[in-house]
Amino acid sequence: MLIIPILALMISVVILGGGNVATHLFKALNKSKESSVIQWYNRDLDRIKPYANTVPITDDLNLLVQADVYILAVNDDAIAKLSSELPFEDRLVVHTSGSVSIYDLDKKHKRGVLYPLQSFSKDSKIDFANVPICIETVDKKSYPLLKTLAVSMGSPTKRINSDQRKVLHLAAVFVNNFTNQLYRIGHEITESEGAEFDLLKPLILETAKKIQDISPFQAQTGPAKRNDKKTIKKHLKILENKQHQDIYELLTQSIQNTHGR
Amino acid sequence: MLIIPILALMISVVILGGGNVATHLFKALNKSKESSVIQWYNRDLDRIKPYANTVPITDDLNLLVQADVYILAVNDDAIAKLSSELPFEDRLVVHTSGSVSIYDLDKKHKRGVLYPLQSFSKDSKIDFANVPICIETVDKKSYPLLKTLAVSMGSPTKRINSDQRKVLHLAAVFVNNFTNQLYRIGHEITESEGAEFDLLKPLILETAKKIQDISPFQAQTGPAKRNDKKTIKKHLKILENKQHQDIYELLTQSIQNTHGR
Repeated sequence: MLIIPILALMISVVILGGGNVATHLFKALNKSKESSVIQWYNRDLDRIKPYANTVPITDDLNLLVQADVYILAVNDDAIAKLSSELPFEDRLVVHTSGSVSIYDLDKKHKRGVLYPLQSFSKDSKIDFANVPICIETVDKKSYPLLKTLAVSMGSPTKRINSDQRKVLHLAAVFVNNFTNQLYRIGHEITESEGAEFDLLKPLILETAKKIQDISPFQAQTGPAKRNDKKTIKKHLKILENKQHQDIYELLTQSIQNTHGR
Repeated sequence: MLIIPILALMISVVILGGGNVATHLFKALNKSKESSVIQWYNRDLDRIKPYANTVPITDDLNLLVQADVYILAVNDDAIAKLSSELPFEDRLVVHTSGSVSIYDLDKKHKRGVLYPLQSFSKDSKIDFANVPICIETVDKKSYPLLKTLAVSMGSPTKRINSDQRKVLHLAAVFVNNFTNQLYRIGHEITESEGAEFDLLKPLILETAKKIQDISPFQAQTGPAKRNDKKTIKKHLKILENKQHQDIYELLTQSIQNTHGR
């Protein structure tokens, strides 16, 4: 059993990058008893200086120490170049992106992906129990270590392939960015008449809570599903913004396609 | 002070209608110490029979008893007719619809609206602390009683006008029905590659929680806001459904308009 020595030892980690994902990963891994962040690299040292008395930091790739895994939590466009610049080979190097191919990592490394399926804000606290970590590896041997690492942060994990990661990232844009834009439009519409957006907040929360238990298909209600033409017409008349009208019509059609109207 | 006698007495209520809103209102008002449901009317008596040992029920408008307020929790299209058929006048009669005019109620009555801004499912329990009640009245004198009634269920209340109710109802379609359809599309996309929709559920909840504290404008992230053309192109290529492509493009444009791209 190859995995026994891995599970028995503390996993040593070097984090590369200074953004939100890097910072939240640092905090979660630093708290964990099964892993230890032994070095933090960032091109711009100032961004990670606040952590300098907690972890050794560096801005020099040539000073990177030996570790079990190197986590590249950098911008999508920087992943390929940074991985090729790493002055070593045959070590486990992973990125954290939802949309970058695992093969964008330089092939001199053992390659993997740790894709945290959550939205990271700078200031908000993250409970990694609510951050599913999607794991992908080129060679099977790297998988157990990455799983142990994710579990050590308290995260649920799921082994996925590249195509699954791509669609999860795409679906995340729909349920996060696009949903948030619908909230924004709701904000604009209510404010246009001096009504309070706050009144909608319990409904927004309830809508998200509902599909934790039942499918979005089952959860659907409203004028589009009922094909309530009178209300739909009224709504289109109220909307002054042409783009909001287009969105209303397109999503109404989409609901009606889903529900066979 | 006109409102003192109203506040001092228990408010007597007759509910008309047998759907989800009627049932949830009955349960909430029945629990309240400041109000009492003294009769429940429905055209189809079978639907409310399960409650017959808790409250007097009837299917005959001529048998309606005298009450402080009559709540018409019926389909939008049935409100006008039912209100004109009521065999009395000059009593307080309210409907619960987001989109029907207060003037659709017969003018022989004192007219009002109690619009609960929440999505009511048949089976799920509702905590009325999470149901803002939007109150509208034709004459000012009816307002204090309706406010007391709503507060007696534990609900936050807000006095609004017709235009505000209309835009709140419209905005509710965006943040509830349309958002739920984006969840549905996320479901379809992930399933197309055998990935698990469940992995997206924490993100969905976090997206809704985030805007409880910060505005949707501040909360926005992602490829559309960053104008990350490479990722947007990749995503459009993955989407096989033309309508999903259209929704992706339209909401991406909407985000970019909002964020000045």
